[in-house]
Amino acid sequence: MTDIAHLGPVELLTPEGERSLAFFTDVMGMEIEGQEGATTYLRGWGDYQRYSLALTESDTSGMAFCGLRAWSPEALERRVAAVEASGLGDGWTDGARGRGPSYRFRDPDGHRFELYYEVERYDPPEHLRPSLKNQPQRYTGRGAAVKRLDHVNVLAGDVRASREFAQQALDYRLYERIELDDGSEAGAWLSASIAAHELIYTRDAYGARGRLHHLAFWVDTREECLRAADLFLDNDIHIEAAPSKHAIAQGFFLYGIEPGGNRIEVTTGGYFVFDPDQPTVVWTEQERAKGQAWGVHTVESFHTYGTPPVAGAPLAH
Amino acid sequence: MTDIAHLGPVELLTPEGERSLAFFTDVMGMEIEGQEGATTYLRGWGDYQRYSLALTESDTSGMAFCGLRAWSPEALERRVAAVEASGLGDGWTDGARGRGPSYRFRDPDGHRFELYYEVERYDPPEHLRPSLKNQPQRYTGRGAAVKRLDHVNVLAGDVRASREFAQQALDYRLYERIELDDGSEAGAWLSASIAAHELIYTRDAYGARGRLHHLAFWVDTREECLRAADLFLDNDIHIEAAPSKHAIAQGFFLYGIEPGGNRIEVTTGGYFVFDPDQPTVVWTEQERAKGQAWGVHTVESFHTYGTPPVAGAPLAH
Amino acid sequence: MTDIAHLGPVELLTPEGERSLAFFTDVMGMEIEGQEGATTYLRGWGDYQRYSLALTESDTSGMAFCGLRAWSPEALERRVAAVEASGLGDGWTDGARGRGPSYRFRDPDGHRFELYYEVERYDPPEHLRPSLKNQPQRYTGRGAAVKRLDHVNVLAGDVRASREFAQQALDYRLYERIELDDGSEAGAWLSASIAAHELIYTRDAYGARGRLHHLAFWVDTREECLRAADLFLDNDIHIEAAPSKHAIAQGFFLYGIEPGGNRIEVTTGGYFVFDPDQPTVVWTEQERAKGQAWGVHTVESFHTYGTPPVAGAPLAH
Amino acid sequence: MTDIAHLGPVELLTPEGERSLAFFTDVMGMEIEGQEGATTYLRGWGDYQRYSLALTESDTSGMAFCGLRAWSPEALERRVAAVEASGLGDGWTDGARGRGPSYRFRDPDGHRFELYYEVERYDPPEHLRPSLKNQPQRYTGRGAAVKRLDHVNVLAGDVRASREFAQQALDYRLYERIELDDGSEAGAWLSASIAAHELIYTRDAYGARGRLHHLAFWVDTREECLRAADLFLDNDIHIEAAPSKHAIAQGFFLYGIEPGGNRIEVTTGGYFVFDPDQPTVVWTEQERAKGQAWGVHTVESFHTYGTPPVAGAPLAH
Repeated sequence: MTDIAHLGPVELLTPEGERSLAFFTDVMGMEIEGQEGATTYLRGWGDYQRYSLALTESDTSGMAFCGLRAWSPEALERRVAAVEASGLGDGWTDGARGRGPSYRFRDPDGHRFELYYEVERYDPPEHLRPSLKNQPQRYTGRGAAVKRLDHVNVLAGDVRASREFAQQALDYRLYERIELDDGSEAGAWLSASIAAHELIYTRDAYGARGRLHHLAFWVDTREECLRAADLFLDNDIHIEAAPSKHAIAQGFFLYGIEPGGNRIEVTTGGYFVFDPDQPTVVWTEQERAKGQAWGVHTVESFHTYGTPPVAGAPLAH
Repeated sequence: MTDIAHLGPVELLTPEGERSLAFFTDVMGMEIEGQEGATTYLRGWGDYQRYSLALTESDTSGMAFCGLRAWSPEALERRVAAVEASGLGDGWTDGARGRGPSYRFRDPDGHRFELYYEVERYDPPEHLRPSLKNQPQRYTGRGAAVKRLDHVNVLAGDVRASREFAQQALDYRLYERIELDDGSEAGAWLSASIAAHELIYTRDAYGARGRLHHLAFWVDTREECLRAADLFLDNDIHIEAAPSKHAIAQGFFLYGIEPGGNRIEVTTGGYFVFDPDQPTVVWTEQERAKGQAWGVHTVESFHTYGTPPVAGAPLAH
Repeated sequence: MTDIAHLGPVELLTPEGERSLAFFTDVMGMEIEGQEGATTYLRGWGDYQRYSLALTESDTSGMAFCGLRAWSPEALERRVAAVEASGLGDGWTDGARGRGPSYRFRDPDGHRFELYYEVERYDPPEHLRPSLKNQPQRYTGRGAAVKRLDHVNVLAGDVRASREFAQQALDYRLYERIELDDGSEAGAWLSASIAAHELIYTRDAYGARGRLHHLAFWVDTREECLRAADLFLDNDIHIEAAPSKHAIAQGFFLYGIEPGGNRIEVTTGGYFVFDPDQPTVVWTEQERAKGQAWGVHTVESFHTYGTPPVAGAPLAH
Repeated sequence: MTDIAHLGPVELLTPEGERSLAFFTDVMGMEIEGQEGATTYLRGWGDYQRYSLALTESDTSGMAFCGLRAWSPEALERRVAAVEASGLGDGWTDGARGRGPSYRFRDPDGHRFELYYEVERYDPPEHLRPSLKNQPQRYTGRGAAVKRLDHVNVLAGDVRASREFAQQALDYRLYERIELDDGSEAGAWLSASIAAHELIYTRDAYGARGRLHHLAFWVDTREECLRAADLFLDNDIHIEAAPSKHAIAQGFFLYGIEPGGNRIEVTTGGYFVFDPDQPTVVWTEQERAKGQAWGVHTVESFHTYGTPPVAGAPLAH
């Protein structure tokens, strides 16, 4: 119901190219779709596009850009016009692997995005051809076997400014947000579909710009999240937050820090928003103090650590 | 993406009022929202509207009507205009419990629908107030504890005609369909959202008109489907199809026959359609002969039985 | 392979008789098997005996006694002789509801036990008669719907003394234990079967005698533990430790405090010990500092609170 | 509680050595512990012994032998004496990879067994060392990632004779059995522990001798069984029986036919038998006609096919 079909692919930077790649293939169970220069293109077994993650060896960590597929050519035009009007546009590129012309811009906090419409659907090689034709790829069951990219959580110095931009220029819907006692906004959960969240802004504890909180990959069941925790444990992946249920959006989560330092979530659950007039749920500081759904308090690093890390700040791992 | 936000509420008829009500409250775990005359209004713990099921004692079984909430007042106008142009419209009513003005019509096969936009959100009584404010009602955990109405499968003598009407007049998207060797259409899976199906047409084996195949209610996990099967078993509810995974739409299912004779599904799983240009998956007769995803062949009654039952035809139970 | 078949029933004391009973019936989903004086007899749907929990209104909380069924009349004789030799025996009683002659004694820490062999199997009333004849009772699915009593964890001032008594006088096997840097024992996990634990001793932080850490009830799946957490949340039961996986014994847990103050666990998982010569796993202080399996650190109260509470000590709730 | 600790390892024959090995490593997720001649030694991540499956390339399929570990040296002596008295003993061997002196015998139907006590516990290589010290091996999560060998089901021309031998000579307990209207015995579920079944005899439809019905490997959750079905599907493993729940023993199952023709089960669930005097559940022909727990009727091949296959009989695949 919005002009955005979904987000992705995301380009993720890592100073530990080889170890990060091993994490995404062996532990997360993603497939390598291709490789170009310093970038490896990865996909979940349920991604309909050729890839949803571009992993690039770099001197730092963090998110290089987040793709946003428009719903139609007209929707793309509308969004580009809105972004241009905001003065945050960077202009058109010819596109990239698997997608057509893309319009680059930054949100008020400085995160890079690319709007596009044209895309190539995945055509699996023989050894990955699925048994059921409504599935883009064979289910390999390797590692956590994540199905697809689900959502992106970025940090922002001014959550409200970026959140309003996402609503106005990008046509996102706002389902939940946190408003602190001083009236400032600590987090905002936005979606372009009935899924409870797709794009999330949370406050950057250091006031840094353009940082990533985490990328989340979907599995179909809570059991797969629990299983992923066992895999993280036995593959020496730092578990920052063990599986539990968020109060906000009610998503079931597992958070780990991949070898390059980026926080990665394995997620499932949550609820669907079928009401076109769904009122935004606003959480107070006091309500948030109760912890997650079942009372779990996330560790301090969860509220401060992001990538690239801020010089001198404590790490999550 | 479409002018329809979602379907529901559904009015279901039963010749066994008391026993059907006990099934929906004790076994399915729904709450009674109210009662008026021969109708009891029921809800899942995750329904945002006051109710999603109106259960009416009657001399027969089957679906009396299916509500369709439009995305906006403008979307409602567009859909009403399209239905009127098709010549299948019946005209406006003042609405009903919990919703505003509704436009009545029938699909080409004769199923009654009501289009509306205005709706009342559920306001739970004290004993059903949830702990998390992003949840419409307390989770009681009673019986199968279904969360919400998920989809409706209706039988049609001419699947293609009704399916095309759903696409053209109602703005549904077509994700999957079955085309037999003779070119006829045996089933069509439509959705107004990223959910893999919301409205399904399958062929009426008797060529009867306006019949119901099943109503499906959502649970969040496959474990809850398995658990529901144990509840059906120990509550003497006829299990027509034990839990397994559909090939089409990949939904996980449990089918039972409620005391009034209507087929009821407990469902979860499936996939999301994020691609605005998703090509429709077309299944052949030969492909369907393989059975469900893991090879399970549904019993004959699954392909013939509907409500109200056809005189003289075998029952599912 | 030991002289003990299993533990239970357990008599639990509560100063909040009515509210505790509502917890065990509505939230835990147990059935009332009978009532005598201040005691209500409760059972899970999978308990083969008439009841596994005797809930008694009292002026305090805690465990009144723990039953131990011997494997055979000869095994009973052997165990009684061993207990008598230890000087901790209290003598025979005529038995109690559902069981024959019982031999009372206390462990070195003062917890009361009753050894018995004769028992009545449960004969369900019509409305609880199961569909499958290898199941003692209908599956009602009410609340957490716990299947049976699983294990008992008692606090001890001197863990080693009680643990050695359990091994020598009661014929328990020791599967895991914690040994602190000072050589003292902080916990011991014992079992009379292949289940990873049935009787657990952990250190009483206050050096009090005869206290209870928790009673654990079994569910068959981790999903049911997660579901139980949602039920605790929406029934205002204090969740002391949200669902996660123990490092020791690898059990999956949910801990809550019932209205009478006793800690209750909903548990599943763990491993089976098929090796008759299984070496005892000994955990060091440093290893325990890592938290549970996925790194979760249990709250302080988990290491100090027990019932009856120690005067002046902080509560868990 | 019996003289047998557990069964296993099992030697399985396959005419398709390479493809069977790929099945057990890639699809079932077992580890190769070693290789000698035509035999590969395989283990689940939870097996405490070095291996639980010896897979041997051969000109046929079926089970070459089934190991039985005695509870103690004395238990071994008792069992050997009982078997010798029955006249079915073959005598002692020096043992084999990972176990000490073994006593060979055949059951009345001709299946080969080996009784032993001495055994080597698994010592994982560095890359398989687990994070939790109470786990014999790292959890790799590859494929179905089965935890351990769970039970063996062998066919017998005369179920009663073999079942009585298992009880009398081998000290197994009989938990459930099927008695047909003509008084003959169609199946018997035996166990040496609280697990609901470990050794199963079912009737050989062809009256052949010494054949295998299936080997079953354990996973901890029903979700893992469902997941295994997806893996079987996408790895072209014939699914003979999709995941569902048995009435007898209430085990949750998935049956497939491995490339060498042997039937393999992925299993979980069931119940524990804590009652030392548990009465044997006897199922009648009429009761069995109802199908599995939720009414699923297993395909004909399930009741007739075994390995090695009978010449001219239909295959399961």
